[in-house]
Amino acid sequence: MGPTDRLATFIVQTDGDAIPGHVVHEAKRTLINVLAVAIATSEDPSVSSLETWGGTGGPASVIGRGTASEGQAALVNGYLAHLQDYDDTHFPTVLHPSAPVWPAVLTAAERTGASGAETLAAFAIGCEVACRVALSVHPWHYDAGWHITGTVGGFGAATGAARLFGLDAARTTQALGIAGTHAAGVREAFGTNGKALHAAHAAASGLRAASLVASGLSGPEAILEGRRGFWAVLSPGGHNVAPIEGISDLIASDARWELQNNGLKPYANGVVSHPLQDAVIELRNKHSIAADDVRAIEARVHPLVLELMNRPQPETGLSAKFSHQHCAAAALIDGAGHEAQFHDDRARDPQIAAVRALVHATPDAALGEDEVHVTIRMADGRELTTHVEHATGSPENPMSDTHLEAKYRALAVPVLGERNAEALLRAAWTLDEAPDIRALMALASKRRGA
Amino acid sequence: MGPTDRLATFIVQTDGDAIPGHVVHEAKRTLINVLAVAIATSEDPSVSSLETWGGTGGPASVIGRGTASEGQAALVNGYLAHLQDYDDTHFPTVLHPSAPVWPAVLTAAERTGASGAETLAAFAIGCEVACRVALSVHPWHYDAGWHITGTVGGFGAATGAARLFGLDAARTTQALGIAGTHAAGVREAFGTNGKALHAAHAAASGLRAASLVASGLSGPEAILEGRRGFWAVLSPGGHNVAPIEGISDLIASDARWELQNNGLKPYANGVVSHPLQDAVIELRNKHSIAADDVRAIEARVHPLVLELMNRPQPETGLSAKFSHQHCAAAALIDGAGHEAQFHDDRARDPQIAAVRALVHATPDAALGEDEVHVTIRMADGRELTTHVEHATGSPENPMSDTHLEAKYRALAVPVLGERNAEALLRAAWTLDEAPDIRALMALASKRRGA
Repeated sequence: MGPTDRLATFIVQTDGDAIPGHVVHEAKRTLINVLAVAIATSEDPSVSSLETWGGTGGPASVIGRGTASEGQAALVNGYLAHLQDYDDTHFPTVLHPSAPVWPAVLTAAERTGASGAETLAAFAIGCEVACRVALSVHPWHYDAGWHITGTVGGFGAATGAARLFGLDAARTTQALGIAGTHAAGVREAFGTNGKALHAAHAAASGLRAASLVASGLSGPEAILEGRRGFWAVLSPGGHNVAPIEGISDLIASDARWELQNNGLKPYANGVVSHPLQDAVIELRNKHSIAADDVRAIEARVHPLVLELMNRPQPETGLSAKFSHQHCAAAALIDGAGHEAQFHDDRARDPQIAAVRALVHATPDAALGEDEVHVTIRMADGRELTTHVEHATGSPENPMSDTHLEAKYRALAVPVLGERNAEALLRAAWTLDEAPDIRALMALASKRRGA
Repeated sequence: MGPTDRLATFIVQTDGDAIPGHVVHEAKRTLINVLAVAIATSEDPSVSSLETWGGTGGPASVIGRGTASEGQAALVNGYLAHLQDYDDTHFPTVLHPSAPVWPAVLTAAERTGASGAETLAAFAIGCEVACRVALSVHPWHYDAGWHITGTVGGFGAATGAARLFGLDAARTTQALGIAGTHAAGVREAFGTNGKALHAAHAAASGLRAASLVASGLSGPEAILEGRRGFWAVLSPGGHNVAPIEGISDLIASDARWELQNNGLKPYANGVVSHPLQDAVIELRNKHSIAADDVRAIEARVHPLVLELMNRPQPETGLSAKFSHQHCAAAALIDGAGHEAQFHDDRARDPQIAAVRALVHATPDAALGEDEVHVTIRMADGRELTTHVEHATGSPENPMSDTHLEAKYRALAVPVLGERNAEALLRAAWTLDEAPDIRALMALASKRRGA
């Protein structure tokens, strides 16, 4: 059996009931995370550009924006999920699996009326396929300049949709083929709206591939391993077939699912300063620190913090995301690092600017990338210190459900209101018991004030 | 000025009135050709799969299929234009420019109410940009496994749409950026519906890029030359900046436009047997040959004919397209090589099978790829011979307007009926005088019987 056929067999033959409970729970957590981020982003002015293009109204739900055609819903939901760089990360490959896969799964489940349990299974399987295709080309593919979320994401989106559409193995292979031949996205687009459009394209293109093949179109049958296929053309520097071969044993061997290597971000900024933010928030909460009583925040950090995120006094919200000083100051004052802490007016806020000036980081190459030592010197002479070994959201220190709920509420309540936000959160936690996903999507797609 | 900026400047600053008349005439010819092919293909059963996906009804015209949303119209029109492999070919690069570029231009012109002359100028400029981007990566890109029509086509589609949407140079650069980062299509999809979907994706994605940037989204500003851009990532084997640099002088120097290197195919099959078909049809018409009077068709051919197209008795229409014997037999009996000559029932037709058995080709490496010597031996002892030096549709022997009209009528009349087909042909020949393209698109989008 060839590698692409092997994926298709796994997609078709895996019994949803055989997926371990902790994997299903992790799938729910990624859903709550992606809903939170997309709901917050649904008020971004750029979303109207996508609506000018693809229109509104139709059979499929758009998070925070009502309804649209299926292709448009997957496109916009993928964009919303990735625009703030606040979605999940598959640590071994820097793939962001939820942004392309969940939109395709949700739209397909709306079409077919799939149960909540079937929907969660389709996501878990789609995520597994995407992560393993990513592993098969990592690091050559990303190093060559590809944005792996855009390229590999489409395989996961097509997988989830093919599973929900009930394609057989032969057609699933071809759906992967059509999705794979539309893989796109180069890193040159980073720093522009083009980056989020990669996730959008992957979601819509993967869903389209499964839909077209379901209604009779043909596609290539060996997209991974073919002579002019994905590995040969998009990863000529190398590839590794083992992650694909291994998928056949996943259920029987009780092996680790890739969802367990997928982290949720606690802060809406670059990951290298996350341990610093963890440490400051820990001390702030433990000692009830008021910002006015702080004289200095001293940190020993991994050298990448200073290489990538050293901007003592950023002037815009976007540049504040690349300032470890701003991240630490917002952590001290607000106890958080959501998009709200990176608005332009917060970058110019005098109180935050004053605290930024108190942050002093020194590099220590002996530390891990997700590690930090922090000392806060207080006006009363106290020295408060802590050591974070693994930042929140890393596979070694996953975000707790409580922390995830706090992130969700911080992002969703201002848009949906408390009552709807809580109802949606309950719907996500109990999705495996739902007869279909209509109730969840009705809540998720509400527009502010509607 | 960087290469991408140079393209954008050409796109924005070129005065439509400065485009030479023979180039505008060639643009009209590509339109007539693409309309003919798409109209004939609009009855293919696979088109309904695309409609199941993207729906029908909307502001944009679909050739032979009514209307749809803008994105869906560009998608379906691109698919229709390329499905039969009967569209045009840019000989230096094997790019098929019309299938991705014309659909984006037509949909954009419908949105803006552009005049016929502006529409033709947008196509000529979009085609020029696509061909020059193709030249900049040829042969490395195609040899690496990319389907250049899918990848480079999006640049041309975005160009035509950006021009019609009135984007300034800075925004045009970013529209090229968004189109370029969605470039997709590997040759592994050849032989499946996926190949035509490449042209469809390029058309829709290029149009989408221009539309999104027009309404405010940002894209990368150096998609060609950037460190993680199109050249670095999709053509790591090499690239050539000269075709891009040269575009600035195109108008002032009165240089050759790439449309003049773009050929129209007289036959719906692989190009290597076209000289053979030319020769048989020439002798058939000149001597009023009846098939029953023929004893042998002897040909000296370029060796590729036997390597690629040697199937003495094909059993399906698709395999008949790869049979030089079938191509020659259909040329003798029907005087043509349209899709109708490659239906399954023609492959099984006893009369064609009998003539196929009379075809004897011998390879001659001294011949050009578009060259042939043919002798037809008649029952009465006559030997009728001819030599085709350059097959019809090559840059050295372009298809005449009369021949193009015959191709158009053969493909369009059975679908549109003679009256509508003739009205559409007139609308295309006089497009530069039309106030907008509504009349043309109303005729082109008629469904059979409507």
